[in-house]
Amino acid sequence: MNQLRSSPIVVLDSGLGGLTVVRALRAKLPAEDIVYLGDTARLPYGSKTATTVTRFVKEIIYFVEPMRPKHIVIACNTATALALPTMRAEFPGLSISGVIEPGAKAAIVAAGAKQCPIFGVIATEATIRSKAYERAIHRRRQHAQLLLCPTPLLVPIIEEGRGSNDPLVQLAIKQYLAPLIKHRMDVLVLGCTHYPVFKGLICLTVGPRVRVIDSAEQCADDVARRLKDRSLLRTEVAAEGAMKARQGSLRCFVTDDPKRFAVLAPRFLGCQVGTPSWVSPEEFAGARAPAVSITVPA
Amino acid sequence: MNQLRSSPIVVLDSGLGGLTVVRALRAKLPAEDIVYLGDTARLPYGSKTATTVTRFVKEIIYFVEPMRPKHIVIACNTATALALPTMRAEFPGLSISGVIEPGAKAAIVAAGAKQCPIFGVIATEATIRSKAYERAIHRRRQHAQLLLCPTPLLVPIIEEGRGSNDPLVQLAIKQYLAPLIKHRMDVLVLGCTHYPVFKGLICLTVGPRVRVIDSAEQCADDVARRLKDRSLLRTEVAAEGAMKARQGSLRCFVTDDPKRFAVLAPRFLGCQVGTPSWVSPEEFAGARAPAVSITVPA
Repeated sequence: MNQLRSSPIVVLDSGLGGLTVVRALRAKLPAEDIVYLGDTARLPYGSKTATTVTRFVKEIIYFVEPMRPKHIVIACNTATALALPTMRAEFPGLSISGVIEPGAKAAIVAAGAKQCPIFGVIATEATIRSKAYERAIHRRRQHAQLLLCPTPLLVPIIEEGRGSNDPLVQLAIKQYLAPLIKHRMDVLVLGCTHYPVFKGLICLTVGPRVRVIDSAEQCADDVARRLKDRSLLRTEVAAEGAMKARQGSLRCFVTDDPKRFAVLAPRFLGCQVGTPSWVSPEEFAGARAPAVSITVPA
Repeated sequence: MNQLRSSPIVVLDSGLGGLTVVRALRAKLPAEDIVYLGDTARLPYGSKTATTVTRFVKEIIYFVEPMRPKHIVIACNTATALALPTMRAEFPGLSISGVIEPGAKAAIVAAGAKQCPIFGVIATEATIRSKAYERAIHRRRQHAQLLLCPTPLLVPIIEEGRGSNDPLVQLAIKQYLAPLIKHRMDVLVLGCTHYPVFKGLICLTVGPRVRVIDSAEQCADDVARRLKDRSLLRTEVAAEGAMKARQGSLRCFVTDDPKRFAVLAPRFLGCQVGTPSWVSPEEFAGARAPAVSITVPA
């Protein structure tokens, strides 16, 4: 058990968005080692089918399995919606969680005692189509009303590096949120790990009456709880012997363009990150044999 | 030689944009059979590296090679910019062309006799970064001035199905074109096969002084010329014997989501298309052996 305690937490995503989960995890569990994998060669996942996304995620899990992760977080709403149940069935020996259940749980709490609360959810097309948020919220509040809105442009807008001051960003957010505001939602769920980048602008647009749920933060809380329940929290070890708390490492892998990742990552992570290792998706494909990561020269 | 004459023209692209080339080809060469392959599981190519895009294109060519195509068009500016020279070297027995040279040639003609013409080029990040248009234009006009502008949002905007009347589309085009208009370009090259969808709005935005070059149309002219030079035009056969001109077929393959393709295709093609066949990119990977296409039930 002790050996697993010193194993890394693996965070995986189609690209950069999952780094908002890494940021929340590092704030909450600073002693943990984290391995991040962004499938940048095949991003985005949000416009693709369940068959394709499930295959991609399975290939990634085969790749990270030999690292003996103590926990795997699918830090992508689309991949959680389309692939999480299948991954849990295919890898029964691994502990795997996603971002949707924690977000839905927090949304319910935020709605308080209201009889028929109205939940807005913004997410990729694939996440909306999957009805994963509908199911997760209705399981807890049968009479909740849901307003689901696919917002496919927000990811490319964020990845282009545009900021909240850009009129195009403001127009896109205004257009997407207008019907949700009109129907007087009580809670808005940011159903994509990219969206916290625009959380300030989104809060301003929906006004103070609406509670905004950031699934990245909720997801980090959920991972901490899971590790604590299994007595796998590394902070416990540090507290026993060391004078100074352990500082966990972060190691990143991408399937394309490590340099671009290093440039864009600080926007999501809130700090600099070294150039990640590159691993080809071909090495994943069909390989139960562990793939090899290659460090790309700068 | 006759046998090759009845072979198909293969058009390949990362997704749907290449269908603007198919539309132009069908208008120009209605008797030709066309096979289209859209790599929808791994799109977009425009934000990815040369290594990754070259690998993807090579896998696709291995897949289409057994069809004995009389010509292959890389109907994607990014793939042309990053992979065409390598593909010609790797497949010396195949006739392969792209969209950049025809577009550059037409831009030069459009600039007329002007001493130092100014060319604007809008394209994906990868196409701009490759300097392929710079090289193609400077080879023909050493003193040409180039204004290169990456426009990464236009593809996702088009694939979301937004029209020219949408204020967000108008704002995006205005923002991207403003510096090119300010610097008084003479010719604007639409350096992505998606962009002809907004050609009307783009022409309106740049004004009548600027000539707008649609690389899809230029590419079709180029293919027709190449086939004529090799005496492989199917129209010639039809003209000899038949009373009625032959109507060529169009067969489409995609690597993800055939239904979505069938819904969006008419916007690019100008007419309906049946549900395409689905082929997994895993079947490409590493397969010199021809991959098998599977028709997905509706």
